[in-house]
Amino acid sequence: MNLKANKTTDLRVEAETYFNDLRDRICEKFEEIDGGSSFQRSPWKRDNGGGGGVISVMKGKVFEKVGVNCSTVFGELDPEFGEKIPGYQNHFFATGVSLVAHMVNPLVPAVHMNLRYIETDHSWFGGGTDMTPYFPFEEDTREFHQALKGACDKHDTAYHPRFKKWCDEYFYLEHRKEPRGIGGIFFDYLKEDLNKDFLFVKEVGEAFLNIYPAIASRRKNIPFTDEQKEHQLYRRGRYVEFNLMYDRGTIFGLKTGGNIDAILMSLPPVVKWK
Amino acid sequence: MNLKANKTTDLRVEAETYFNDLRDRICEKFEEIDGGSSFQRSPWKRDNGGGGGVISVMKGKVFEKVGVNCSTVFGELDPEFGEKIPGYQNHFFATGVSLVAHMVNPLVPAVHMNLRYIETDHSWFGGGTDMTPYFPFEEDTREFHQALKGACDKHDTAYHPRFKKWCDEYFYLEHRKEPRGIGGIFFDYLKEDLNKDFLFVKEVGEAFLNIYPAIASRRKNIPFTDEQKEHQLYRRGRYVEFNLMYDRGTIFGLKTGGNIDAILMSLPPVVKWK
Repeated sequence: MNLKANKTTDLRVEAETYFNDLRDRICEKFEEIDGGSSFQRSPWKRDNGGGGGVISVMKGKVFEKVGVNCSTVFGELDPEFGEKIPGYQNHFFATGVSLVAHMVNPLVPAVHMNLRYIETDHSWFGGGTDMTPYFPFEEDTREFHQALKGACDKHDTAYHPRFKKWCDEYFYLEHRKEPRGIGGIFFDYLKEDLNKDFLFVKEVGEAFLNIYPAIASRRKNIPFTDEQKEHQLYRRGRYVEFNLMYDRGTIFGLKTGGNIDAILMSLPPVVKWK
Repeated sequence: MNLKANKTTDLRVEAETYFNDLRDRICEKFEEIDGGSSFQRSPWKRDNGGGGGVISVMKGKVFEKVGVNCSTVFGELDPEFGEKIPGYQNHFFATGVSLVAHMVNPLVPAVHMNLRYIETDHSWFGGGTDMTPYFPFEEDTREFHQALKGACDKHDTAYHPRFKKWCDEYFYLEHRKEPRGIGGIFFDYLKEDLNKDFLFVKEVGEAFLNIYPAIASRRKNIPFTDEQKEHQLYRRGRYVEFNLMYDRGTIFGLKTGGNIDAILMSLPPVVKWK
């Protein structure tokens, strides 16, 4: 990679390495839960710029469609896009992992997770995870939030209230006055102390890997009705509405020539509107 | 209705009356083509404002989902929304008919049609119709364009080239560099001579009523494969992407407290993303 050597280069490599390793461990765990299917990996390169990534997708018996995208991109940005990124002057570097899972069983929540490290004229971490149950179990909701609170509290007890609120505000469908799901945490521009911030980001990755597979495992074999499946397909419309109308990553990515398959990996495999 | 009396009030009533009458004739024709199902009508009132409308929806053997919305709304607008409407000061009036049909048979094109009359500090007509075949028949494409050209040419031979181009530019998915379908016509701010413009708008309504039912009728019974149906469900994703990401009516309507059911009536009943 043709990168300018600077003091944060090590962090670039370490972050990318961690995100790829987390992806590998998540995929392994998800394959085990699915019991039979496996992820297919497709590498892609960025058009008109440096870098690219690998999309890993599995369609299975438990995971109706799960996509995990690891990407490392750098170089110049379309000026219009650059304007929206704090500190962008004429080059950037971004590495991250992004995951969305839509499940066969409507009693298993859909989930989203993303961790990223970005450099413009300064450097920061961002990310988060949020869960969208269609038939919420109080136990799942409580344990999901507890796991994230645990990860936050190890680093700063101010984090969880702040990042949980940020998540609730971000994943909100203004036109329906509805939250997307039960929330989780969302954070961005974390740059007080990059080495410590990186430890926190890793903590979030590990918390996700601990909690979501546990929830999916205990719900995946509960029998469900056709009516419940219909409700899930209908509620998935909200996921599409959010991602196409509000999600910054999706809109900016699509409007600025990103990899369409990687960006729209988040959309559910089947959706109904009534 | 509590409207200010002015010289265009007659046109308000005449336009609304024509749109409702066209809706009735379209619904009757579509029910005949479907052969068994009928439209269900739901009236709605505008939140925080004057007016409302009636959504007519049919789910049948030929029409997987067709919605026709007639609305007449007036009063004040959210200032942010008002800014985007030419000539808006502190009141507006809008009456229109809007139609989207998604078909069971993937060999029958999806179609959209809209006609509207708007008053702010000036008055104008707008509208258009465009067709989205998933397996285009050259004959259908040619006759659809011919019907619209015929309607245009009766009024002004400059209309068709201009309104066809406007349609191609409007119904374009920038992020995919793809047109939504085969196009048709799109026009707005028609206000040279409102009485003549109204005659043109009616001509477009009649042209739609002549051509689309003819196309649907001759394709509806052609056998299709599961693979063709899958392709239709997949391509419908483009319809969702366009409407949620680009369509001005959809985005403004949703973001400014319009009737969600009426606005999202345009979304297909079942969609797949791969």
